[in-house]
Amino acid sequence: MRIGVLGTGMVGKAIAGKLVALGHEVKMGSRSADNEQAREWAAAAGSSASQGTFADAASFGELIFNCTSGAGSLDALGSTSPADLAGKVLVDVAVPLDFSQGMPPSLFVASTDSLGEQIQRAFPDARVVKTLNTMNCRVMVEPGRVPGGHQVFVAGNDDGARQEVAQLLQSFGWPADRIIDLGDITAARATEMYLPLWLRLMGALQTAEFNIQVVR
Amino acid sequence: MRIGVLGTGMVGKAIAGKLVALGHEVKMGSRSADNEQAREWAAAAGSSASQGTFADAASFGELIFNCTSGAGSLDALGSTSPADLAGKVLVDVAVPLDFSQGMPPSLFVASTDSLGEQIQRAFPDARVVKTLNTMNCRVMVEPGRVPGGHQVFVAGNDDGARQEVAQLLQSFGWPADRIIDLGDITAARATEMYLPLWLRLMGALQTAEFNIQVVR
Repeated sequence: MRIGVLGTGMVGKAIAGKLVALGHEVKMGSRSADNEQAREWAAAAGSSASQGTFADAASFGELIFNCTSGAGSLDALGSTSPADLAGKVLVDVAVPLDFSQGMPPSLFVASTDSLGEQIQRAFPDARVVKTLNTMNCRVMVEPGRVPGGHQVFVAGNDDGARQEVAQLLQSFGWPADRIIDLGDITAARATEMYLPLWLRLMGALQTAEFNIQVVR
Repeated sequence: MRIGVLGTGMVGKAIAGKLVALGHEVKMGSRSADNEQAREWAAAAGSSASQGTFADAASFGELIFNCTSGAGSLDALGSTSPADLAGKVLVDVAVPLDFSQGMPPSLFVASTDSLGEQIQRAFPDARVVKTLNTMNCRVMVEPGRVPGGHQVFVAGNDDGARQEVAQLLQSFGWPADRIIDLGDITAARATEMYLPLWLRLMGALQTAEFNIQVVR
């Protein structure tokens, strides 16, 4: 399918690259149409890869990935045409990190709200699904890098959208029984608030290539 | 050793009961000396169990467990004599849940601060160690209830206190290699902010007897 990936950082490149490898047509979107990262990526990724503005990528995609920085997500999405988000699945991978208070970063929204909810409220006609935001981008697209039965979470208001995203996650290599459906988009609070523990664990383990497995 | 356990709820009873079973002398503390829960517990738990006020329990213990509700922790600890906390290891198991905004509960402190830090600041002479706050109380004291290599986290400013708590956790049944040291007390932000994910997982899994295993 045609997929728009907003964001040219490590996460955007990892997701966009995986989607191209899986046979999708992918347009990477950035603030300006001449973003060097995006141009280099598109040139290297082959004929099914292209790049443009955030608006171009949203218009292009039948499904949209938000891989922008959390602090820039609402602006990035706001620069697209609302009609280009309406009815589409919007996969939100962004994390609401706030680096203004020093290291380790804090969250600019937490507890009674979340970035996922902010995005769903700002773009009510998009079908927002929060997922993949609990791990490093290499693990997102290649879960076998980490051993064991570790899991990925999905949250969103639209049942069909969560199912569609679960299918896409399976194509990334996530077995169906390792995709935990947490329900509506308010569960984005839970997965976003896990991020500080993820950051501490990265420090304690001295690697970003890990994930959590819920055992019972 | 002599241990004071502040709190008469499920967590307090689980911790106090385990400590008695391990051969410690335990005084359970509550707001008033005639708390029915505490009296019943002490009467049933045998000759090494007793009960009294929060101040009595703090005075009694060579080590103190805070198992009060998060919203009541600063008041409970504030009702003890500062001299009875000074120099002692204060194991903080409490969670900063706020039920005033409806269900699921939010946190009354998060992101740039934590309950563990609030307690350490309020009682600077205590050696606060945050631990066990990422799981159900039955799993805290009997980790074998959940299969696999799931883990427990410790955070605190005093290296010796973290080590002492790690020893105590081993006596609870936690193997040394499943105790993850996250460093200073600011890491309490991370483990406390995991709580919303724990609550969502409890809903999705329909059980409280689970834990997370960090795999890499």
